[in-house]
Amino acid sequence: MTPVTGTLPPLAPRIDQLVGSVYSNLVTRLGRYDGETYPFHVGDTWLVPPEGCRTEDVTQASHPGLNTYTPVPGWPPLITAVAARVAARTGVPVADDEVAITAGATAGLATVLGALVGPGSEVIILSPAWPLIAGMTTAMGGTPVHVPWFGEVTDAAQVGPLLDAAHSPRTVAVYVNTPNNPTGGVIPRAHLEAIVAWARRVGVWIVSDEVYEDLQFEGTHTYVRSLAPERTISAWSFSKGYGMSGNRCGYVVGPRDVIAGCRKMSTYTFYCAPRVAQAVALEVLSPRGDAWVAAARATYAALGASIADRLGVPRPQAGTFLFLDLRPFVGDEPVVEVLDRCVARGVLLAPGSVFGPYPHHVRLCFTAVEPERTRRGIEVLAGLLGR
Amino acid sequence: MTPVTGTLPPLAPRIDQLVGSVYSNLVTRLGRYDGETYPFHVGDTWLVPPEGCRTEDVTQASHPGLNTYTPVPGWPPLITAVAARVAARTGVPVADDEVAITAGATAGLATVLGALVGPGSEVIILSPAWPLIAGMTTAMGGTPVHVPWFGEVTDAAQVGPLLDAAHSPRTVAVYVNTPNNPTGGVIPRAHLEAIVAWARRVGVWIVSDEVYEDLQFEGTHTYVRSLAPERTISAWSFSKGYGMSGNRCGYVVGPRDVIAGCRKMSTYTFYCAPRVAQAVALEVLSPRGDAWVAAARATYAALGASIADRLGVPRPQAGTFLFLDLRPFVGDEPVVEVLDRCVARGVLLAPGSVFGPYPHHVRLCFTAVEPERTRRGIEVLAGLLGR
Repeated sequence: MTPVTGTLPPLAPRIDQLVGSVYSNLVTRLGRYDGETYPFHVGDTWLVPPEGCRTEDVTQASHPGLNTYTPVPGWPPLITAVAARVAARTGVPVADDEVAITAGATAGLATVLGALVGPGSEVIILSPAWPLIAGMTTAMGGTPVHVPWFGEVTDAAQVGPLLDAAHSPRTVAVYVNTPNNPTGGVIPRAHLEAIVAWARRVGVWIVSDEVYEDLQFEGTHTYVRSLAPERTISAWSFSKGYGMSGNRCGYVVGPRDVIAGCRKMSTYTFYCAPRVAQAVALEVLSPRGDAWVAAARATYAALGASIADRLGVPRPQAGTFLFLDLRPFVGDEPVVEVLDRCVARGVLLAPGSVFGPYPHHVRLCFTAVEPERTRRGIEVLAGLLGR
Repeated sequence: MTPVTGTLPPLAPRIDQLVGSVYSNLVTRLGRYDGETYPFHVGDTWLVPPEGCRTEDVTQASHPGLNTYTPVPGWPPLITAVAARVAARTGVPVADDEVAITAGATAGLATVLGALVGPGSEVIILSPAWPLIAGMTTAMGGTPVHVPWFGEVTDAAQVGPLLDAAHSPRTVAVYVNTPNNPTGGVIPRAHLEAIVAWARRVGVWIVSDEVYEDLQFEGTHTYVRSLAPERTISAWSFSKGYGMSGNRCGYVVGPRDVIAGCRKMSTYTFYCAPRVAQAVALEVLSPRGDAWVAAARATYAALGASIADRLGVPRPQAGTFLFLDLRPFVGDEPVVEVLDRCVARGVLLAPGSVFGPYPHHVRLCFTAVEPERTRRGIEVLAGLLGR
């Protein structure tokens, strides 16, 4: 080794503020477990995308230049297809320059926060919430402000006062995620209307994470873009509805100026989404994809209900998760100890603290591995929780 | 449309500071051109990756879970292969936690700047330089400081004084890119040793962009990691050497603490690199990939030399670009007018101003389209430049 000399500057302040991978420590321990494992901590699916929509189905012959960059905003045919889809679903016209194709909705939301959040900005997060949104806010120099919401707000009249209490002159946006990760809850239309009215009154953007739109088990999804197109930036994904998480393709839609900012952030963070992911995304925006989603939704709904019933908790309204308050199961036992006991039996859960102020909760994904293995894992977990 | 009411917060300050896609305006105009087009503006290749290493070659059957997330740091077998490769090439041991697999080297370098650059930080950029590095610095709250280098520095004794003149107490890193985009130049080992000595003296990181390492036409590549492993973060890509730009896979290697920071930034910007891209990356790190690169390098070298000869400029030492000073060709004619004349004949070039203080230059990629079409485009360009 070359001798080390001289000093080294400290890392950027954001690095100390950011939580590292929530799961890596647990995953390392799971890797040492001998028996069957139950990785319920990550949000993924055992299903494979429909035939014709897998990366192996797109070839250099069928798609010349498959190995090359697309333009930063996205592959033009996919942009056009996404614009048409979002216009049809939301009832609000969408121009091509109001769309950015991104390396997953994660990258999409990161570009949105890059466009909206400057030093000192605050983002209100309806919680419990997808853990990455708080870190993205931090990474861009802002401060996340958690507002406990799911399980708390039962009447639209609560919405304004609750958000007013969290608002400051530095608030630039409110993050809304319905259907919700981690709770599997759905924000009713009347509550969304109240959020929109509040956002208009105080003058903030709405970042609407709708990646679970196709996995709502009952009723119809309300599009925030339909209610407030002038201030809503919506994020969607091919990862959740179509089982394409490993492909890294999603999209964001919003006002032209914000999307121009998102495209700039794309340029300087990941350049463009993978071409093959964009190619299969276009394939899946079709009746074939619709049929696949409908079947996946029914499968997930039945699975989620049966697992909730087994554990004696309310059934999820949407999505792929249960968010469990452990207190009824284990009383005062610290969650970290429960997680330890679970890992020791091959069961991985995500700690509630990463979703906001939820030290007594854990999140369980019931779609990460095939249903029979999931059910075996749930039996192990039920035993560990005294059920 | 819902009536627009209320105000909207301004976008984040970084958005005004960032240059949008350098090419989008030119590309739009090229799209309206009727004849054969010559998109020499973007760095890409007409070659396709070797057989067995194309995304179509990896199937759900051969790689179960191909459609699912990998861990944030990367797919473990690829991390291990990359660590072994970098250790063998640089002579410096590489632990798995000193590697981050990223969505292209672009995403990799963005995570590095996210880890190193805080508000007010300065990054010294040896110029002309890959345009995204300045924008990444800006996006993370820092300031890029261009130091004209290629074509300027001919003696190692110049290095210290030149860098001293650009250094301030806010300097956190120097960005070194050899072989260089856009000039096709190579920084000699003695100059790299002087950069390292300077970085140790003043106490800064070295961000070493080595994505063209395999496309050096003569001599051997010098790894900055070999000279200063304690302060060097190196970025590599599968895009350039292996013709996989559309796949979005690259990697960064450096000190453990910095890589931990990069992994955090990955988590909050793109989560993980695409799994299929990581799978074919592992395939190409093989004798099959080595043979492909050797052939590509020879082809590129011959093509670059013949095009340089045709235009009467020095042959590139590496890479896929010529960086042309237009003054000997067109005198005082503004570059923007030359670019306009080129677009009007189907030829797209990148303006020199995006690479640093180079208002009289343009960059030409000679590998973006197949050689015969490239040669036809070069004839058009030569005519436009009076050659």
